[in-house]
Amino acid sequence: MQRYFSNNLSNNKFILNDDDMYHIKKVMRMQNNDLIEVVYNEELYICFLNENDVTIKEKVENSVKKLNITLVIPLLKEQKMDLILQKATELGVDNIIPYKAERSIIKIDSKKEESKISRWQKICKEAAEQSKRLDMPAITKIYTLEEVANLKGINLLCSTKEKEKNIKSLLHSSTIYDKINIVIGPEGGISPKEEEYLNSKSFISVSLGSRILRVETVPIFLMSIINYEFME
Amino acid sequence: MQRYFSNNLSNNKFILNDDDMYHIKKVMRMQNNDLIEVVYNEELYICFLNENDVTIKEKVENSVKKLNITLVIPLLKEQKMDLILQKATELGVDNIIPYKAERSIIKIDSKKEESKISRWQKICKEAAEQSKRLDMPAITKIYTLEEVANLKGINLLCSTKEKEKNIKSLLHSSTIYDKINIVIGPEGGISPKEEEYLNSKSFISVSLGSRILRVETVPIFLMSIINYEFME
Repeated sequence: MQRYFSNNLSNNKFILNDDDMYHIKKVMRMQNNDLIEVVYNEELYICFLNENDVTIKEKVENSVKKLNITLVIPLLKEQKMDLILQKATELGVDNIIPYKAERSIIKIDSKKEESKISRWQKICKEAAEQSKRLDMPAITKIYTLEEVANLKGINLLCSTKEKEKNIKSLLHSSTIYDKINIVIGPEGGISPKEEEYLNSKSFISVSLGSRILRVETVPIFLMSIINYEFME
Repeated sequence: MQRYFSNNLSNNKFILNDDDMYHIKKVMRMQNNDLIEVVYNEELYICFLNENDVTIKEKVENSVKKLNITLVIPLLKEQKMDLILQKATELGVDNIIPYKAERSIIKIDSKKEESKISRWQKICKEAAEQSKRLDMPAITKIYTLEEVANLKGINLLCSTKEKEKNIKSLLHSSTIYDKINIVIGPEGGISPKEEEYLNSKSFISVSLGSRILRVETVPIFLMSIINYEFME
């Protein structure tokens, strides 16, 4: 069954946005009274399709909540960013924080920031629907490194310099995390100055092993191994 | 240093193919006597660039060999296949076997098979160079399911039906694998008939956890968790 998000509930009916209604009616060619899934406020509902809205048939009982993962991603070329957003959403990322790294080759004009972020949110929304998540990742505004440094939780930094401490030893070392933030460097890596600064702000540098990964592979790798580590 | 593969050695000199020489001279704008890395027969050499070939400066001592991973991938649309080949190569896959699944929507004409495979090999070669591997994944011809069924080694099958046995319990259960083959289903999954047939040929169905992943995410997920499991 197709899944859509809504934030508009009244009188037992959800209103979906125009893009979603177009998708349901024109792309999926669904008819009135067909069933769809709607997620509202992180809860799942089975609904009947009407002409312009949907009516709740039943609520599906929620599953348990887990570890909260934030990926802190440098500004990257559009195609790489899109791949990261789609795949990290599929693999369950909770928050995405884009940030300005010293070696980012992409700059985003502050006038264009808002439209960029809504484009990114749209990609995450579609990926969340397709992978049948109950929530959508939150995307923040573009952070400076100083703002990244103030994040609360367990803070990790993917480092190519660090040779001793790897991500596995770190994920193994404690079983009761509730929130992990992971900073990923841009192409060419995070600069020594940035790494030193984040280390001084309690960010732990970790190696991802001996392979040389492209920047857009790193978030997919991280989300995969976190799923694996917490698989039951 | 840039890395290239060669299979042509004579008199202490490697000949590189035309694409690579073009890349070195025109894209990287390297000059004669600049240093490049050349991999020949799974060994690494540091070489001087000449006008039309390269001269060995020194051989770099080889590192240890590890687990051999084969991904058995259904025929997929070009863009998805390209992403899988690039990312699985970065993450260290050893062999890729494309196969005809019942629900593959892509068919490849036997006349076009050879050119497809050389296109795939080119993608793997470039990804192997960029991620500084010492070897290139081997890509076989397109297999039928009966040919897949005859593979030797530990044979796994990514299943959406299997709920009990997950990939983690399986990778944990033995530490002395030397060769693992993993079959991935197409969009819509491997059919019940195919799954039953492979199970009868000693393929073990495993779940990848509770997330719904797109088909092109599965190989990246698998290679990530295998790297993680064998990280030291």
